[in-house]
Amino acid sequence: MSVSPLPAKVARPPAPVASIASTAKSAQKGQQTKAAIVDAALGLATHIGLQGLSIGALAEVMHMSKSGVFAHFGSREELQISVVREYHARFEEEVFFPALRRPRGLPRLQAMFQHWMHRTSVEIDSGCIYISGAVEFDDRPGPVRDALADSVQLWLAAMGRAVVQARDAGHLRPAIDEHQVVFEIHGLILALHYEARFLKTPGSITRANTAFAGILARYGSPAAAAAPAAKKPLV
Amino acid sequence: MSVSPLPAKVARPPAPVASIASTAKSAQKGQQTKAAIVDAALGLATHIGLQGLSIGALAEVMHMSKSGVFAHFGSREELQISVVREYHARFEEEVFFPALRRPRGLPRLQAMFQHWMHRTSVEIDSGCIYISGAVEFDDRPGPVRDALADSVQLWLAAMGRAVVQARDAGHLRPAIDEHQVVFEIHGLILALHYEARFLKTPGSITRANTAFAGILARYGSPAAAAAPAAKKPLV
Repeated sequence: MSVSPLPAKVARPPAPVASIASTAKSAQKGQQTKAAIVDAALGLATHIGLQGLSIGALAEVMHMSKSGVFAHFGSREELQISVVREYHARFEEEVFFPALRRPRGLPRLQAMFQHWMHRTSVEIDSGCIYISGAVEFDDRPGPVRDALADSVQLWLAAMGRAVVQARDAGHLRPAIDEHQVVFEIHGLILALHYEARFLKTPGSITRANTAFAGILARYGSPAAAAAPAAKKPLV
Repeated sequence: MSVSPLPAKVARPPAPVASIASTAKSAQKGQQTKAAIVDAALGLATHIGLQGLSIGALAEVMHMSKSGVFAHFGSREELQISVVREYHARFEEEVFFPALRRPRGLPRLQAMFQHWMHRTSVEIDSGCIYISGAVEFDDRPGPVRDALADSVQLWLAAMGRAVVQARDAGHLRPAIDEHQVVFEIHGLILALHYEARFLKTPGSITRANTAFAGILARYGSPAAAAAPAAKKPLV
């Protein structure tokens, strides 16, 4: 949103106009700086964990003073929460929104899994704050833990809705429990991350895809099994 | 192993005999102290992680001097490795050895899963160093990471052997890949830990059991499905 200049007929000294314009410009610059700090913080957090993040380390990376970084967040906790929100926004952008362009039912559910798999494959090298954060904050109650857990829950709930839609569309069996299906899919992603990143076991991506196909085969309706959508090979 | 006293006919002053006895006694006491330190360290590590372990924190818990604790390990790394070994020994004791008393094939595989599930359920409250350690050491190469990864690999390989035995006994389909089955079972354990411990989702234990039954149904041989062993309800 741009700030309109004041009309000429209003008799005001020029100073406030310049001041409003410069305030707007400085606010915009402030937001850009904050976004750049959050971006750097997210990069750091995926490697060293959210708990490893400190205003000091970030100031060093950003070539800023500690007080300069601090001014944008007010606390280390607020910085951590901003990182969780940024991660959430990127996850939605990469994993969720593209899947919404696919038709409801099995095609959308498959797309959600494929995008999630793709993101997890990339994170085999970098780390994932939904996974490292769960270990760091599983016994640290507070707003950072809440932000993380809410973010993961939102995604799992979206997955659950996609399963319900697939069931309602007749692509999955009528009796299935969406929480059960999502639990099993979540397990595949966690096993992929653990075995590929920590144990460096080759073939983990193929195993996760095979297991997902197995889940669909188990919960798929016999009618859908004969339809082309369910036969589509998984990436 | 006890140290035998020297025969009387050998002309030696009594001092060395007393010295050998007291050395043996002190070595035994030293081992007991070391075991007590490792026990305390394991208790700490399950809550705060292996990385959180320090000689200082442990000295405080043990009411010992830092140098006293240090003398038993020589380094923080050696202390961490001792903790991994102790965890491994207890895991074997609780999860693996009791399952070996069950007949090879599906009964043993089911027992391994049930004991693993039981241990994971207990660790929902305390934490698990195989899971937290994987996050802490996934990008920290070195002997602690190696000890952890080797320990997990040993267990997954034992699970794999149980799957092969179940396949050879005709309880599972001939074409199954044991690595695929173990990957999927590992995923259930990881999902259970994540959802019950971090997200506090109710019903996670039931979901893991249901999913395991689903894996057995998918990979089970049609012959075994009709046999009583495969029908045994899971705990």
